[in-house]
Amino acid sequence: MAALARSVLVTGSNRGIGLELVRQLAASPRPPQHIFATCRDPGGPRGKALQELAAQHPSIKLVQLDTVNLPSIRGAVRAVGSHLKDQGLNLLINNAGISSHATLLSLDSQEMLSVFATNAIGPLQVAKEFLPLLEKAAKGSGQEGLSCSRAAIINVSTKLGSIGLCLGVHQAPMYPYRASKAAQNMVTRCLAVELQDKGILCTAIHPGWVKTDMGTEKAPLTVEHSVRGILTVLASLSQDTSGAFLDWEGNSLPW
Amino acid sequence: MAALARSVLVTGSNRGIGLELVRQLAASPRPPQHIFATCRDPGGPRGKALQELAAQHPSIKLVQLDTVNLPSIRGAVRAVGSHLKDQGLNLLINNAGISSHATLLSLDSQEMLSVFATNAIGPLQVAKEFLPLLEKAAKGSGQEGLSCSRAAIINVSTKLGSIGLCLGVHQAPMYPYRASKAAQNMVTRCLAVELQDKGILCTAIHPGWVKTDMGTEKAPLTVEHSVRGILTVLASLSQDTSGAFLDWEGNSLPW
Ligand SMILES: NC(=O)c1ccc[n+]([C@@H]2O[C@H](COP(=O)([O-])OP(=O)(O)OC[C@H]3O[C@@H](n4cnc5c(N)ncnc54)[C@H](OP(=O)(O)O)[C@@H]3O)[C@@H](O)[C@H]2O)c1
Ligand SMILES: NC(=O)c1ccc[n+]([C@@H]2O[C@H](COP(=O)([O-])OP(=O)(O)OC[C@H]3O[C@@H](n4cnc5c(N)ncnc54)[C@H](OP(=O)(O)O)[C@@H]3O)[C@@H](O)[C@H]2O)c1
Repeated sequence: MAALARSVLVTGSNRGIGLELVRQLAASPRPPQHIFATCRDPGGPRGKALQELAAQHPSIKLVQLDTVNLPSIRGAVRAVGSHLKDQGLNLLINNAGISSHATLLSLDSQEMLSVFATNAIGPLQVAKEFLPLLEKAAKGSGQEGLSCSRAAIINVSTKLGSIGLCLGVHQAPMYPYRASKAAQNMVTRCLAVELQDKGILCTAIHPGWVKTDMGTEKAPLTVEHSVRGILTVLASLSQDTSGAFLDWEGNSLPW
Repeated sequence: MAALARSVLVTGSNRGIGLELVRQLAASPRPPQHIFATCRDPGGPRGKALQELAAQHPSIKLVQLDTVNLPSIRGAVRAVGSHLKDQGLNLLINNAGISSHATLLSLDSQEMLSVFATNAIGPLQVAKEFLPLLEKAAKGSGQEGLSCSRAAIINVSTKLGSIGLCLGVHQAPMYPYRASKAAQNMVTRCLAVELQDKGILCTAIHPGWVKTDMGTEKAPLTVEHSVRGILTVLASLSQDTSGAFLDWEGNSLPW
């Protein structure tokens, strides 16, 4: 089996789903040549698990990237660009996200703004700044059509961001989180339409309800299981699924 | 024909669609007893058209309401509550909104945050603060089921907020506006689910592309035509269309 992509960048990769994405990519039989494992503080105590992983895999490069801080995003673009030299970035995975348990009664507009900033604006700004590197990969690939091995943006979304489903509002009111992920889904869809002619795929992926700090121990899926599913789905993406909203098993979700 | 509702509040009613909603409601054969025409500066020059309209119709009460300012929202709740005395508010129309023409290349996160604040967070905060008055109307109505004459929140949305359609991204990139309205649609849907047991309807309405400052002169619909359609649709809403996304002609739109 071919590598998923020659180069991959993951945001928020110091714990949870992001960390496991880096782990499974690095451990795969044909790993990407460059795995840019980014997080807010790669040198600090919160980056410890990632540092240990990177020590075992030379393909992993740790890069500082705070997705709500434009100078940080631009610094990451420069760092990644100089590693890649004359090649582009094939696969950008916007995984970083925050939750919010605010209900209708407890919600606060400042908190809601910060959830929007991280979950909707962050992925868009990161995509925008990495666009030149993604375009370079798309052009230099020698491939036709759309795929993660050519050039792609994957936005990690959630079923709770499906307006059509909007299930269980009573159990999980979470207005700010849901609204921010619906906004993120719109961003995914707009990017898919706008970037298809440039040879860049863009898809939203729901990882399932996963045992992480965010998902809690109550979640039914292990992070290993979810990420195995996600990586299988990513390898299958094409023209037909650019602009789609899929879960970790490849099932389509309504907007 | 019965009045659409005994009491109605419209946000952003000093111009455009909001002003025309107030005008047609006041001029209808059976006007609401109370029309709370709200805007940011009812006494100032931007409130002039509304002041003139109110001078002709005693049912219109001008109320200050900046939808992104919590003290202002709470002041409006107090003013409306003291007008209504022991009665509730039947119909809240969240019409205030702002546009943004930022494209992928020109977008700026501060501008995007302010579009979110006005288009998604504003309607939610206004709904939350007016909830006690809406609940009072729902309880005191003596009616079963859901309707605008009992208790309802109408969020003025847009077809550009439909993730499923996501048409014409090239012609109208407008990422911040689209994403903010998708977020607003999620808010509408969550409110519809959460408030149905309290007897409160909640529906998203696309007014069409309308000749206003926002829609520009290029728009095909006059504001009179759009608002006539909207008011006909509002009168028809029920349990079946709470949580729906309809246009000014009553057609259903995909999320
Ligand atoms: N777990 C689930 O059940 C579930 C379900 C559906 C969707 N998701 C989505 O999956 C993604 C990952 O979730 P998770 O469960 O792995 O969450 P998690 O365990 O809470 O980890 C979140 C990650 O995002 C990072 N992050 C947050 N804000 C950031 C910023 N401004 N810049 C850079 N990194 C930032 C965190 O870094 P720090 O350590 O610095 O905070 C952390 O690495 C999220 O987008 C989430 O919405 C999760
Ligand atoms: N026109 C169209 O083609 C079209 C199409 C689809 C959807 N819509 C939606 O329809 C609604 C009305 O649009 P319009 O065409 O009438 O726009 P408009 O002519 O630009 O008027 C916007 C109104 O919203 C008010 N507003 C903005 N921010 C506010 C705030 N923070 N607090 C209170 N009021 C505020 C404005 O007040 P100021 O005068 O103080 O600025 C003004 O009264 C919007 O939600 C818009 O998204 C319009």
